[in-house]
Amino acid sequence: MTPTSRTTVRRKADRARYDRAVVHGVLDEALHCTVAFAVDGRPWAIPTIHARVGDALYLHGAPANHMLQSAVAGTEVCVTATLVDGLVLARSWFHHSVNYRSVVLFGRAVRVDDIAEKRVALRALVEHVMEGRSDDAREPTDGELRATLVLRVPIDEASAKVRTGGPIDDDDDLALDVWAGDLPLRVQAGVPRPDPLLDGARAATVPSYVRVWSPAGSAAVGERVGEGVDEVTQ
Amino acid sequence: MTPTSRTTVRRKADRARYDRAVVHGVLDEALHCTVAFAVDGRPWAIPTIHARVGDALYLHGAPANHMLQSAVAGTEVCVTATLVDGLVLARSWFHHSVNYRSVVLFGRAVRVDDIAEKRVALRALVEHVMEGRSDDAREPTDGELRATLVLRVPIDEASAKVRTGGPIDDDDDLALDVWAGDLPLRVQAGVPRPDPLLDGARAATVPSYVRVWSPAGSAAVGERVGEGVDEVTQ
Repeated sequence: MTPTSRTTVRRKADRARYDRAVVHGVLDEALHCTVAFAVDGRPWAIPTIHARVGDALYLHGAPANHMLQSAVAGTEVCVTATLVDGLVLARSWFHHSVNYRSVVLFGRAVRVDDIAEKRVALRALVEHVMEGRSDDAREPTDGELRATLVLRVPIDEASAKVRTGGPIDDDDDLALDVWAGDLPLRVQAGVPRPDPLLDGARAATVPSYVRVWSPAGSAAVGERVGEGVDEVTQ
Repeated sequence: MTPTSRTTVRRKADRARYDRAVVHGVLDEALHCTVAFAVDGRPWAIPTIHARVGDALYLHGAPANHMLQSAVAGTEVCVTATLVDGLVLARSWFHHSVNYRSVVLFGRAVRVDDIAEKRVALRALVEHVMEGRSDDAREPTDGELRATLVLRVPIDEASAKVRTGGPIDDDDDLALDVWAGDLPLRVQAGVPRPDPLLDGARAATVPSYVRVWSPAGSAAVGERVGEGVDEVTQ
């Protein structure tokens, strides 16, 4: 993607990534994003779930949703998504850091009215929460689709920022007798909990996509940025 | 905290929490936040790390940092922090959800010039990344403190939103032959990686606070909101 005046990373420019694959990878792996918008010149931000389909980011909510109302009214949005990959412990306070991958996306959200596109967007939102799920669960009726507000933000003006690796200490601090290094982190799933309203036999048949869940594309992204996501203990 | 027109949760108002303990707990456990601000009426948002000391939220960065410059100029900020606690699988697409705890905080960031307060803030930032670390690593010099921009946002106008539990399906869908339930998630640490510049003996002595790291206060918060964070597999 071509950096614009808004997406050109100024601080720590060596961490900037403008390639679409990295931007898409962060958006796909992040379980939520934050949508910022301005109301009468004052900042608002709301965390929400999202899904990417090609070069479009979809958001959804009830029609009364404040964020969506503002966006529908033509307000620009700034969407951020962030993955924390690890904690970085330097020999000085000053150089402590976190390893992360983040995306900042600017755009104008437009309301999706086409029922077929809304269905595609909602399927993507379900799949974003749990890949493989949309074929099992009941699809929405046209009435439900009409009652859901869906917004599309083009993924055109965006940048990613990535920090990987260990601490970078001042030369003068290298001789200090202090352990330094980094601690990889990742999102880990626990034991699935069946809905109490399921009967016993149904409750026991946990779908495979639930049992094997892991963050979308995390291994691939970990390899791409040269980080030790795979080294995290299972 | 008293809800204001900005912090009164309108959508899913039953999920709103205005008590200071919940707001503080989310800010303390979240490893990063997103700071939104408006520039010429257009939204910007930047992910960053933060730390709480009492009723103050501290942010920091290099003096050239765009976010900090805007905030120093007197711009209001909207800080959000979000923890995803699980994935919620309903019998219909429509009722899929995530379990989460989030905070939205509005305020005016002021620059901290007092060297003693800056030191307190930076210690809190180090401790936020890794509790117990600040006593081991080298403290900043007064020169380093002067070269770091620190902002303080009062935690006065804030609200939390919390979703817990399993899916809430339409009555008509309860008979569908579809597994439903929720999958708890949590942040898990991997194997600490020593800085290659450490000598072998030093590299092997990983501090206990690194070996036992877990998200700050996650067990306590999990108990408070009645969620099964403790049930997550180790």
